[in-house]
Amino acid sequence: MKVTCGDARTGYLCTDHGEIPTPVFMPVGTLATVKSLSTGDLENAGAKIILGNAYHLYLRPGMDIVRESGGLHRFQNWSGAMLTDSGGFQVFSLSGLNKVTDEGVKFQSHIDGSYHTFTPENVMDLELGLGADIIMCLDVCSPYPCEKERAAEDNKRTMDWARRCKEKFEHTDHYHDYRRFLFPIVQGSTYEDLRRISAETLVEMDFPGYAVGGLSVGEPTGAFRELSDFSVKLLPKDKPRYLMGTGTPQDLLYSVGMGYDMFDCVMPTRNARNGQLFTRNGKMNIRNAKFKRDFSPPDEECGCELCRNNTRAYLHHLFIAEEILGLRLASIHNTHYYQDTMRGAREHIAAGDFYEWRGEWLRNYS
Amino acid sequence: MKVTCGDARTGYLCTDHGEIPTPVFMPVGTLATVKSLSTGDLENAGAKIILGNAYHLYLRPGMDIVRESGGLHRFQNWSGAMLTDSGGFQVFSLSGLNKVTDEGVKFQSHIDGSYHTFTPENVMDLELGLGADIIMCLDVCSPYPCEKERAAEDNKRTMDWARRCKEKFEHTDHYHDYRRFLFPIVQGSTYEDLRRISAETLVEMDFPGYAVGGLSVGEPTGAFRELSDFSVKLLPKDKPRYLMGTGTPQDLLYSVGMGYDMFDCVMPTRNARNGQLFTRNGKMNIRNAKFKRDFSPPDEECGCELCRNNTRAYLHHLFIAEEILGLRLASIHNTHYYQDTMRGAREHIAAGDFYEWRGEWLRNYS
Repeated sequence: MKVTCGDARTGYLCTDHGEIPTPVFMPVGTLATVKSLSTGDLENAGAKIILGNAYHLYLRPGMDIVRESGGLHRFQNWSGAMLTDSGGFQVFSLSGLNKVTDEGVKFQSHIDGSYHTFTPENVMDLELGLGADIIMCLDVCSPYPCEKERAAEDNKRTMDWARRCKEKFEHTDHYHDYRRFLFPIVQGSTYEDLRRISAETLVEMDFPGYAVGGLSVGEPTGAFRELSDFSVKLLPKDKPRYLMGTGTPQDLLYSVGMGYDMFDCVMPTRNARNGQLFTRNGKMNIRNAKFKRDFSPPDEECGCELCRNNTRAYLHHLFIAEEILGLRLASIHNTHYYQDTMRGAREHIAAGDFYEWRGEWLRNYS
Repeated sequence: MKVTCGDARTGYLCTDHGEIPTPVFMPVGTLATVKSLSTGDLENAGAKIILGNAYHLYLRPGMDIVRESGGLHRFQNWSGAMLTDSGGFQVFSLSGLNKVTDEGVKFQSHIDGSYHTFTPENVMDLELGLGADIIMCLDVCSPYPCEKERAAEDNKRTMDWARRCKEKFEHTDHYHDYRRFLFPIVQGSTYEDLRRISAETLVEMDFPGYAVGGLSVGEPTGAFRELSDFSVKLLPKDKPRYLMGTGTPQDLLYSVGMGYDMFDCVMPTRNARNGQLFTRNGKMNIRNAKFKRDFSPPDEECGCELCRNNTRAYLHHLFIAEEILGLRLASIHNTHYYQDTMRGAREHIAAGDFYEWRGEWLRNYS
């Protein structure tokens, strides 16, 4: 059941690894671990679904090992739900060389330069073997900026590949015996007409949920907001809507306000490892010398392990001394913070005052 | 109350931060953190006392900050007991240059090359400010091998400095209001007559406990065992006896059998970060390719977070992919393993069958 407040909505994703209240932020567990965190840390932060990267897992440890171990959940000892991306984004952003044809994409490993090919069909096999609850269709993510001709070509392939992914998904071994859901990805770069074609075509194919991709790839904030708002309105209201790769806490709350339900981003954990904490009063770089003798908690209102137990001075010391524990404590905090922010959004959507709450939240943050 | 089994003994160290069952292994928290572990991880492993390095803490974050925060326990959120070494060992092993006089030792920081001087008096001030429950006298640790003339000079200074440390300790501000204990260090390199002079002189001064230093510095195992056995017999039976910087699990059990009560070493955590696990059946290098598809726990009989939840294949993957979580999980295991080993020793000393148990333990291990 969904409750709405304007365009914002709250409800549940129902998987065989738990019911996940939405809107939800999914921490990114690139290589079968959300960097520096154990699954216990994720549970303590309140995470109920995490993401894995098919591209990275394909290269290390490889699908066979994950499948033999019983799937990603068991491999990494995670009892909650999981989503894997298709690897498309990494192929285009990380690999040394890549060549796209109608068939698929040939690419070089960013680790050893070896050659590999992803097709809609073998990516389905890969993702089904890895075993996430929600898996994504292989797509072509246009860069920013992008000529319209190329964007149209990328978009056409993305639509064709979604059809082939669905076909393969419906007629192949699922390897594991819990329910699996396949989502396609709306592309179209910065062109509204292309995005409309993409969304309409994919909706016509009838998937259980839809993602919007190709945003948060370098475009200005204004364009990002307009295009994400434009795209979400093209998608069915009765299905989950996932904005891929977003983003800052502010971006999350703006996008929740547009009607998105799902988000993922490496920002909370990556920034944590650089010493940047997200707090109720905005960002804080804990490496700053002013925290050397600051014996208050990083975020007074936060209930995470770091903020309950440690001071800014201690975390500052750990970062200056390059101690591993600092990376983990900062990652625990940021992960907790993102989960708390989404919990706040859900509560205020349910209470009907989401936009007022968001206004106050943004004033405190800046 | 002490229970003995041959020369081995079990009892308690009584501090204002808890009663610590002995024999005890103290994990080394160099820079106000046992590398990669939180204090929660240490508690879960069963640790009741940890060590801090005065030399490292003096350089970063500095004594003032630790003292202002309320002492090392509060600075790093550790509710158990603590011991700090004097910094002497690091001055001689890490710093670029060092020059010893009767007054003290002048040295260069290994971080930025700046010049500093440690004297018995300022080291007492440093350690009292840091605030560990048990603090160590400044000593001169002879290298291995060492000419007798130099060993005798180092030993003489170590005895003089112990007297000056005790004098300063008894007539200066203790900064924090819980009980503090000062231990001196027996030196004398590989020369039994020097070690006898050292021990007799220090025992005459009447300290609450005694350490044996200058071993585990590169000497052959045979010499190490003979000298540690020789040294412990020179120390009072009614006081704690601490063998500094030891060592492998086998060395610990041999030394417990000689009558030592306290140990510390970076080995469990340092080796963990290199992928080496200690198990009931000996050492295991988890990076070895044979663990790639091994879905059994690292150590079947271990109850640590790693062995309860994860497979060898998963830990292997984390190390190959250079994921931070691998360092922590391996450190959790080795720390747990060392605590378990000492718990076993205590139980079997109390039961009166320590030497039989040790024999079986060693057979399984090798």
